[in-house]
Amino acid sequence: MFEDKKAVWLRKADSLKPALHLETVQPVSGMPDHALAESESIVLDFGNHYVGRLTLKLESEGSHPDAPAWLQIKFCENTRELDETLEGYHGWISKGWVQQEQVHIDVLPSELKLPRRFAFRYVRIDVLALSSKFRLVIRDAFAEAVSSADDGCILPLNSDTQEADIDRVALRTLHSCMQEVFEDGPKRDRRLWLGDLRLQALTNSVTYRNFDLVKRCLYLFAAVADENGRLPACLFTEPQVEGDDTYMFDYSLFFIPTLLDYVLATGDQETKEDLLPLAMHQLRLADAQFDPETQLIRDSDQLGWCFVDWNLHLNKQLCAQAIWIYCAQAALQMHDDPALSTLMEARKKAALRFCYDSEKHLFFSGSSRQISWASQVWAVLAGIVENEEAAKCLNAVSACPEAVCMVTPYMMHHYAEALCRTGNKQEARRVIREYWGSMVCHGADTFWELYNPQNPDESPYGSPVVNSYCHAWSCTPSWFLRSGILEE
Amino acid sequence: MFEDKKAVWLRKADSLKPALHLETVQPVSGMPDHALAESESIVLDFGNHYVGRLTLKLESEGSHPDAPAWLQIKFCENTRELDETLEGYHGWISKGWVQQEQVHIDVLPSELKLPRRFAFRYVRIDVLALSSKFRLVIRDAFAEAVSSADDGCILPLNSDTQEADIDRVALRTLHSCMQEVFEDGPKRDRRLWLGDLRLQALTNSVTYRNFDLVKRCLYLFAAVADENGRLPACLFTEPQVEGDDTYMFDYSLFFIPTLLDYVLATGDQETKEDLLPLAMHQLRLADAQFDPETQLIRDSDQLGWCFVDWNLHLNKQLCAQAIWIYCAQAALQMHDDPALSTLMEARKKAALRFCYDSEKHLFFSGSSRQISWASQVWAVLAGIVENEEAAKCLNAVSACPEAVCMVTPYMMHHYAEALCRTGNKQEARRVIREYWGSMVCHGADTFWELYNPQNPDESPYGSPVVNSYCHAWSCTPSWFLRSGILEE
Repeated sequence: MFEDKKAVWLRKADSLKPALHLETVQPVSGMPDHALAESESIVLDFGNHYVGRLTLKLESEGSHPDAPAWLQIKFCENTRELDETLEGYHGWISKGWVQQEQVHIDVLPSELKLPRRFAFRYVRIDVLALSSKFRLVIRDAFAEAVSSADDGCILPLNSDTQEADIDRVALRTLHSCMQEVFEDGPKRDRRLWLGDLRLQALTNSVTYRNFDLVKRCLYLFAAVADENGRLPACLFTEPQVEGDDTYMFDYSLFFIPTLLDYVLATGDQETKEDLLPLAMHQLRLADAQFDPETQLIRDSDQLGWCFVDWNLHLNKQLCAQAIWIYCAQAALQMHDDPALSTLMEARKKAALRFCYDSEKHLFFSGSSRQISWASQVWAVLAGIVENEEAAKCLNAVSACPEAVCMVTPYMMHHYAEALCRTGNKQEARRVIREYWGSMVCHGADTFWELYNPQNPDESPYGSPVVNSYCHAWSCTPSWFLRSGILEE
Repeated sequence: MFEDKKAVWLRKADSLKPALHLETVQPVSGMPDHALAESESIVLDFGNHYVGRLTLKLESEGSHPDAPAWLQIKFCENTRELDETLEGYHGWISKGWVQQEQVHIDVLPSELKLPRRFAFRYVRIDVLALSSKFRLVIRDAFAEAVSSADDGCILPLNSDTQEADIDRVALRTLHSCMQEVFEDGPKRDRRLWLGDLRLQALTNSVTYRNFDLVKRCLYLFAAVADENGRLPACLFTEPQVEGDDTYMFDYSLFFIPTLLDYVLATGDQETKEDLLPLAMHQLRLADAQFDPETQLIRDSDQLGWCFVDWNLHLNKQLCAQAIWIYCAQAALQMHDDPALSTLMEARKKAALRFCYDSEKHLFFSGSSRQISWASQVWAVLAGIVENEEAAKCLNAVSACPEAVCMVTPYMMHHYAEALCRTGNKQEARRVIREYWGSMVCHGADTFWELYNPQNPDESPYGSPVVNSYCHAWSCTPSWFLRSGILEE
């Protein structure tokens, strides 16, 4: 499917590859005032979160160096990473992501320019070995920071101090993730995921307004649709553009609202016409998951079939049903299709009929009839319940302590958006100030991939050592604060 | 002293910098027949000892790599190094010498060309991290080996199998150490030491015959004489040519026989005239160490004041006395100087008078009257005792189990040479076959820095992990076997 178009789409994406803005930055503190001996350790603090490459100008003191200097250099987004080690880490995400290098320097003085890109505010340098005849002088340290976001585009925010702080951190998050694509996280996974792209593009539309980058990412996904026209959950750009072999029900569908948001923000009809058939096709591919009798989506035990949130206990059935409806609505905004409209209404009704307890005002999901925050949020966003009933639904889940909770800023975004949709903008504002504001209180320079206020050490990966502390899907407070959606 | 000449000497040395011969070599075994998973480990065997830079052509199998590949690559001269780790190493030589790199590869396929030069036969690759979605394919591995020795110069040796094996390993040792200077060891310290240079130049004169490299090294030392004209024990060539601040009584003096051997082998009178004053000056500088009454050298407790051997229990007084005499004789061969001749005879007599037990035929050294192999060997080489008396002296020490033993091939060279000097060429041949031959039996591709047959784990550095298994001063069997000195 679409095989005849992919080469053209890829060329369009390539032609939109951004030039990166370069900024040379130096540590604001931590530069040693003495020459270092073996076993000494320092922490350079660059004062903000940066994505880039480090250069150290190294010299020696004492006798002529008679052995290589052996250093470990660790890049940390967060102070908690400074003392974490990989010993005992057996999580399922590769420990190769931990930003920790070892280098030997044979000749001093030397300019050590590390070739890899890192995401960091702090750089910890451990002197693993010198000889007793010399010490190491760190004469200079600087980083060439890169981003495709132009800070010159940003208008000041009229807001109180706490919201200004939240906005600043959210902007920095998006800034660090905006590279040659919208990356999910510049520490990890450093690549383009559809679910993250949608929220980044939304926030970009009221901040950096780099719409070419959004367009590029839409075309990149279009170019890597599989032989059935299905869009992968993420894609790689190196060494060549290639889709991942991971497919997620919700992420494929999110191509549709991402395209819609782009078209609404830019009026770019050409791109809309070009990509709409592929977008509509995602809805049709999803049809196979529905029971034709009930119009209810089939549940699945397969890990990751539909993402929704990083809570591993979450049943995704109702959320998937709602996300399909949400995306069908987005499609209908771009393209009138009475048959699709009818199908969407049938699926709304199915959700209400089979998954809603109208007395308790709560949706349930899966054979265990699980109640979760995510189910209520997506039912509201999909308009399965509306107005007062939608508000009741969100109230009901707040009063339901056994409801499966939300663990990511990504899911919290959807909760805050659902609150806005029910008109409860005050509560949406409170959620943003409390949830994202609490990360700011914890010293965040960028918003984290994961944050559960009840358990800040939570990680779906087996250990926080591989967590990402600058993650695209967490950047949406700037959208809430700048788009006007919070205004009464 | 000599300040007006140093710039010219340095330019001469620079003009003699050799072009290195390049050889591309591949492993003879160890290439994996399958893609590697995390925690797997392989050992590439290049079949011989090489000095050079490694390139790995890496690919992946499975899904598109979704995390960096993190590898540890360890270069080993000797199989024993393969399993050694640095944990618990607290020796006084820097662990920065251990040839162990960690690298992260962000993009596959990738050609990984390690920029540092290593000395190795074996390369151990540990896959520290991948992800579960892909495995690592080592498609190709090769090294660009470098040396300034030209194997085309080497004539075959008419000898039995054992001596041919010893000669082959000795030649390889010298070959690997011959780079832009005669290095002491290409693993460690990778630099020019005067004591090593003397033996390398000797062996070179009957093997690779790269006399320009000897000349270059003589001029490099001349250019780094200190403000008093004293020659350092070793020198650095990077980032600029600079003498070390280590001075050793014997090493400074060895400039003289090294110059003599060069002049005898080449007839280069210009270099002789140029450098002879500096050479003679080393003898005069040493005068300050002698008691003017007794003409005996003063003993010293200072570690390393005079090297002789790596046995930390060895008293160096008698050896230093003998080495001065040995070097004075070399000077007299280049330059007639009656006053020097008289002084030399006085110092010989002093050694006999104060340090020789003519009944036991043994020299002793220091206030504890220590008997050592080294003292007898150097007394013989210096001609303090000659002919039958010299033979008795070497016999006596063999029959003296409490004599402080020899631990390096460097000292064993001098023992074998002393045996030849007493006419006992058969015993010299036996020593070479037993001592160096035993390293060959242990699988040596090159001769080691240290070898004590009674304790193969011996290291003066606190652990064999930093020992060098290709060390210049061990290359002299080829000199013995090719110079004719062993012929009756």
